Amino acid sequence: MLKVVKIGGAVLDDATKEKEFISEFLKISNPKILIHGGGRYASDLAERLDIKTKMVDGRRITDIDTIEVVKLAFASINKQLAAKIQSKGVDAIGLSGGDLGIINAVKRNHPTIDYGYVGDIQSVNFKKLENLLNLGIVPVICSLTSTDEGDLLNTNADTIASEIAIAGKAEELIYCFEKNGVLFDPGNEEVVIKEIHINEIEGLIAGGTVSTGMIPKLHNAAEAVKRGVVRVRIAKYSNLKSGTIIKL
Amino acid sequence: MLKVVKIGGAVLDDATKEKEFISEFLKISNPKILIHGGGRYASDLAERLDIKTKMVDGRRITDIDTIEVVKLAFASINKQLAAKIQSKGVDAIGLSGGDLGIINAVKRNHPTIDYGYVGDIQSVNFKKLENLLNLGIVPVICSLTSTDEGDLLNTNADTIASEIAIAGKAEELIYCFEKNGVLFDPGNEEVVIKEIHINEIEGLIAGGTVSTGMIPKLHNAAEAVKRGVVRVRIAKYSNLKSGTIIKL
Repeated sequence: MLKVVKIGGAVLDDATKEKEFISEFLKISNPKILIHGGGRYASDLAERLDIKTKMVDGRRITDIDTIEVVKLAFASINKQLAAKIQSKGVDAIGLSGGDLGIINAVKRNHPTIDYGYVGDIQSVNFKKLENLLNLGIVPVICSLTSTDEGDLLNTNADTIASEIAIAGKAEELIYCFEKNGVLFDPGNEEVVIKEIHINEIEGLIAGGTVSTGMIPKLHNAAEAVKRGVVRVRIAKYSNLKSGTIIKL
Repeated sequence: MLKVVKIGGAVLDDATKEKEFISEFLKISNPKILIHGGGRYASDLAERLDIKTKMVDGRRITDIDTIEVVKLAFASINKQLAAKIQSKGVDAIGLSGGDLGIINAVKRNHPTIDYGYVGDIQSVNFKKLENLLNLGIVPVICSLTSTDEGDLLNTNADTIASEIAIAGKAEELIYCFEKNGVLFDPGNEEVVIKEIHINEIEGLIAGGTVSTGMIPKLHNAAEAVKRGVVRVRIAKYSNLKSGTIIKL
């Protein structure tokens, strides 16, 4: 049964953590798919190129200079990550949503804000990924999606991961990052909520238990579970069998 | 029968030429593989990041800052080119030599010059490419190769193209660029040498007919033909059926 893992960019910014994550990721049996974001590398690169982050009404905008940097950073991380996994003797292939037409998207259509080169997913062509999985290949997918015209768009990696898990009827979707899971108390790293049923999520948010950054992850998780993913796990990059389980 | 096409970076620097090339490339029947270099984009990016080209004894060195830029530029061009081909309804997948362990390399070992992150090809794993070709996929490969440790190295795209053509026993290897083919007279773009037998190459070079930039291409071509590629073509990006044929 398929497992889909999303790794946060901050882990990939650190060579030691990346190595630890890869060895943990490789313990998961095939078929599996890895999704990654860009982390600080894209922001650092933008700074080095003197490209300023554009904000409109408090929202980050991906203008034409920013999408260039995003493509550079994500594609480069993608090729390097696939090569590192391959070097461990596991067939891996680095993809964007544009390869094989895996993730079709449109530019975000918002009544008042022009987000620029931000993609909202229209469809996932899971059949094409399945052809690779059937060859024993691990697809490694960066958070770029593609329009019908082949223009690459910046898309949230958590959303890509949940849409792929849904399309592939995954047994498990794992969001992994630097914390141990969903915490009862943000100040206490040790006490992790073991299990959350999706009908409890809004209560946890309303009660203030869940930190701001975790809210969209939980919403993505709920969406995935409602649409057929057996369970979602939020776990530390160095221990993909621990953390918090989210289910129906 | 397999055809391997190598497109020069300068064509990809120009959106109109790139489009013209893609439509010409898609006229070739499957199975086919596309190899590309980085063109001026990598140099421009290095300049914007204020990274200077290092030269030792007149040779260009790929130091650690340069390989970062090369990975950024090549990977980004690769993902964008694959997405553009895919948008024409043809399954394409963008690869580096690190994906699926396609092109294994070692850092160049030279008695006096440390070339840095430059890779000399050790082996091509054509079987992995064949699995993709059998699915009707067009592999699009950028000029990065990988060490056993998964470190990506800068490698000449013409050499990658000829090594892949040899490993795949290609019917034709096409080097395409902005000129019409191998010219009798560099000043006259219209008069192309139709056919060169590989035993004529050294004579053409000695006689000064062939320009400096063409010499390594002809040597790569001769090597490919000697090692089993049926013919090599040097042609204009907008007409892949014309140009100069090189054969035994």
